[in-house]
Parts: sequence; C-alpha cells; structure tokens
Amino acid sequence: MNALIVGSIGIDDIETPREKATGLLGGSATYASISCAVHAPTRIVSVVGDDFSADQRMLLEERGIDAEGLETAAGKTFRWGGRYLQNYDERETTFTELNVLRSFDPKVPESFRNSEYVLLGNTHPTVQLKVLDQLGGPELVVIDTMNYWINNEKQLLDEALGRSDIAVVNEEEVRLYSGRHEIPRATEAFLDLGLDAVIVKRGAYGASMRTRDGWFFLPGYPLSEVRDPTGAGDSFAGGFLGYLASEGSITESTLRRAVVHGSVLASFAVQGMGITGILGIAREDVMTRYREFLRFSQMETEVAKAAGEGAIA
Amino acid sequence: MNALIVGSIGIDDIETPREKATGLLGGSATYASISCAVHAPTRIVSVVGDDFSADQRMLLEERGIDAEGLETAAGKTFRWGGRYLQNYDERETTFTELNVLRSFDPKVPESFRNSEYVLLGNTHPTVQLKVLDQLGGPELVVIDTMNYWINNEKQLLDEALGRSDIAVVNEEEVRLYSGRHEIPRATEAFLDLGLDAVIVKRGAYGASMRTRDGWFFLPGYPLSEVRDPTGAGDSFAGGFLGYLASEGSITESTLRRAVVHGSVLASFAVQGMGITGILGIAREDVMTRYREFLRFSQMETEVAKAAGEGAIA
Repeated sequence: MNALIVGSIGIDDIETPREKATGLLGGSATYASISCAVHAPTRIVSVVGDDFSADQRMLLEERGIDAEGLETAAGKTFRWGGRYLQNYDERETTFTELNVLRSFDPKVPESFRNSEYVLLGNTHPTVQLKVLDQLGGPELVVIDTMNYWINNEKQLLDEALGRSDIAVVNEEEVRLYSGRHEIPRATEAFLDLGLDAVIVKRGAYGASMRTRDGWFFLPGYPLSEVRDPTGAGDSFAGGFLGYLASEGSITESTLRRAVVHGSVLASFAVQGMGITGILGIAREDVMTRYREFLRFSQMETEVAKAAGEGAIA
Repeated sequence: MNALIVGSIGIDDIETPREKATGLLGGSATYASISCAVHAPTRIVSVVGDDFSADQRMLLEERGIDAEGLETAAGKTFRWGGRYLQNYDERETTFTELNVLRSFDPKVPESFRNSEYVLLGNTHPTVQLKVLDQLGGPELVVIDTMNYWINNEKQLLDEALGRSDIAVVNEEEVRLYSGRHEIPRATEAFLDLGLDAVIVKRGAYGASMRTRDGWFFLPGYPLSEVRDPTGAGDSFAGGFLGYLASEGSITESTLRRAVVHGSVLASFAVQGMGITGILGIAREDVMTRYREFLRFSQMETEVAKAAGEGAIA
C-alpha cells in the first residue's frame, strides 16, 4: 500500500549539551517520510522555498520518496532552531521562521489521491483538513499535533481529529488537550472524539497505545547515549505508518507490531544529529532492532527464551 | 521456600492532594512482608517500640507473617510523615522520628537462620550487614536502599551491595549512586559491584531489570487514579521476592515473571491509603492482574491474542 505524509520541511539549527549544528534538513515530513520509506512506498506533500537546494530534494528522492507533492513557493524555506538543556530532558525553541509555511495551501497531486495510509504530520489543522478534503477515502489516517494548535486552534484541530483514526501525541499534549493529569483518564478524551486509538509517546520511556479494547505498552530502547532527540516523534509516526502500509491490514496484532516499528525508527533517529540517524539504515537494521525490542519486553517469545534459561543468581 | 524481610516498621502520617490520614501502620518491612506473604511463607526482622499495639502486630500475623523476629524495644515506634505534592509527582518528608530504629541491633531468631530468599529492605546498611552475618547462606539476597545512605554511608552500602545478588532501586538512586544520567550507563555501576541484576523502579512508567545478559522492561499498570504512592517500591520488592521464593528457582524466566508480580503488588499498593491497597488481596486478584499486565505488554501470548484480532480501524 502507498503511504502519504503531510507535514513541514525545514532547515534546522540544533544545539545539544555536547554539540551544535546549523542548516540541517529537518521538519516533521522529512523525518516521517524517511522513516516511512524504510517499509513502504512513500509520498510527501509539503512546501519549501526557492532557497531549497536540489541536493536536499535529492536526499529525499534517493530514499524512494515520491516528492511530486513537494511544492516550491516563492520565499524562504521554514526554519527552526532548538536547544536541548542539560540531560536532554527539556528543549527550548530558539527561533521559528515560518516563511513559506505561513501561506501553505496544500495541493495533493492527482496521482496521490488514491493514497490509503496517511499521516497528517504536525502542522496547522487547516492544512491537515485541506489534505483530507483532496483524498479519495484513505483506509487509515494517523494524526500528529502539538501544544500550539491545542491552545490556539482547538476547534479546527477537533475537526481534524474527528476525521482521523489514530492520534500520535506525547504525554504533555494529552494532558493539555484533556485537562487531566493521569494518562489513562486523559486519553479518554481522544477516544470520545471517535478515534480508534491514541498513541502516547513517552520519550525514553517508550510508547503506549490505547484502543477501545485496552492498552499496549512498549518500553523505550535503552540507549547509552542520546545524541539529538529532534524528530524522534516524527520518526515514530513514520515508522508506525510505514509498517502498517507494508502489512496492508489494521488489527490489534499489526498495530502492536507497528508501535514497535515506530519505536525502532525513533531509537535510530536520536542516535544521530538531525536526520543522520535514520538516513543510513536498511530494512535489515530495522529488523535486528525489532527483535531486540521483543527480547527485552516479551516473556514468552523465542527471542526472550534465547535471552537465557540458565540459573543466573 | 521461606522468605525473610528486614526493614522498618513505623507509624505514618500521610497527606495527598485529596486526603490526609494519621497513625497508619507503615514502614518498608510492613509493605514488603504483606506483599511477599501473598506468594510465600514470610518472616520478618524489625523493631517496634512499646507503643506498638497488639492489633498492629496481629494485622501482620493474620497475613501469615512470622513475627518472631519483630523485637519490641523500650521507647517509641519509628514515625514518618510525608506529603505528596500536586499530581503525586513529588513527595516531601514532613518529619522523621527514628525512635527505636536509631539503636536497632537486629537479632535473627535461630529458626530464621536457614532463610533462603532474603530482602534487605531500605534501612541503615549496618543493619543490612548484621542480618547477613547471621544467616546460613541464603540462595538470593535482594537489597533496597535510598538516597540518604548513598550520600552518607557509601562505604557500608557498597559492602552490603557487594554481598547481595539483586538491587532494587529507583531512577534517582541509580543516577545518584553512579553519577551518570543515562540509565543504561548508570546501571553498569551496580553490575560492576558483582550484582547479578539491578531492577530500576520507574514509578508510573513501570520497572526495568538489567542482568548481565540484557534488559527486561515492564510498563506500569495504567491506573485511572492513584490514591497513595507510599510503599509502592517496598510492595514491589516484596512481591518480587515472594514470587521467586514460591518458584524456588532463579532463571531469566522466573526473574521476568517476578518483575511482573512485583509490579502487580505495587499497583495494588497505590490504590489505597497506607497498606489498605494490599491488605485485602487474594492470590486470585494477583493472578488476574498478572494476566492483565501480560495482555497490555506482550505481543504473542494467548492473552494478547485475546485482546482481539478483528479489524479495528
């Protein structure tokens, strides 16, 4: 199945406690589409300015991403700067220049309208809705958002959520959206909107998925070093959608496996500055890490058994 | 197999954002032994003052806990007060009166010296060491501690850790002990001491276990309401030890199942004020919740499959 990703493409300046880099290719659609393309044919709808280089476009196309929906508008590409504070636990935005994103009016190419698996990446809810309006009737719509839209465009966001199947959000967003602190209660607000599932990203603690039937929890990958957390959530969403598109069916089992694949991509993403963590990976790397995830979270699988049955204490 | 619990018994005053209670039976050994006794015959070594009532002692004995090692000393029972701040994310100690704990010189009754599964609950490392000195050669020693001993009695604590098999600590303690922020790196300090495993309690995020072979992660139980977090860690340790004692073998599989059983007891503990959350539970309640834990964390088990295979989106 084909996957369609909508979101931002930008140029990022990133500062971590250990290093600093400027002019990195970033944005939600960049991380998500590269991650998605590991699993399935991926299309992108986004906008860049006339300063966006052929090399940057090539970088996406080389990953097999269909960039027919990548519009070049007069003006400058979206730019964002972020700084991670001590221990990466907090991030502050150092600047945001919307540039061509400000007036983005998404046009879904004719050849993309039959897309069946869709990710509405974090962007203005109006953009998310306009894309939905142009699609023929996708099988699955996954939606991401952020605090800014919850605070400032709640009504439009509710409309976009109501037309989606699965929301991918973080704990802070779930709490802000619902006004409730405890995550089990807070997630109910999303199911009440008619969503089939809500996935709560929990950073180093992994991810949880709530469906109408119950919960699924997956831990974070135990990394000895995080290099740059930027794009982890977008990579999760892309890996999640891409896996489902490659399976072509949405069941409790495929959803659970998709959460693992989302976490696999997110774990690669944070190991490199910008997109470098996910750029070089092959399907084989992904499957190796997928099996690692099972080994350290499952009790009864073959991989868990392989972790050893001998007396250890 | 018999389980032996060493730790404090105290009278607690607890204040949460929603309620306030005084004069509650508490202490690490109380929570741990009640939790342990769900699974295995449990012995306790601790001290109380002459103000400790017959009813309070009865409460432990009614759970089948052998209180021959519960010394009554002249003076008052240990008292502790704690207040949970907004959302239960932080706790402040409102007062600590060590009373008879200050000069506690543990005496392990003759009939307890063959104990095979031992929990050195959070207390002065000297007490932990003195108990070990009186045991015949336990099969498994699990040790808990806290920031205060890491900061003030590092050398004695290291000795106690070095004579133990498994440490049960929280994230803050792992970081403080190791001086490292990232948990994967931080846990290495414990394995370097010769411990076979370190279990890191992560509050609402569950628990992780690191052995020489790798990791096991279990999420927290998704509670819609936490009533009183006091004793969650002690209940975890007690449930963990009790399950292992009931199995009588220490393998990767029994350890993983013991982490689930520790989490089961901790989840019951936080549902009631003081010990009320764990007082009334039967083995059947524990097994029901054990299966729930598997259903929301496992991919391939029968219980996970039972969560539904139909298309859901």
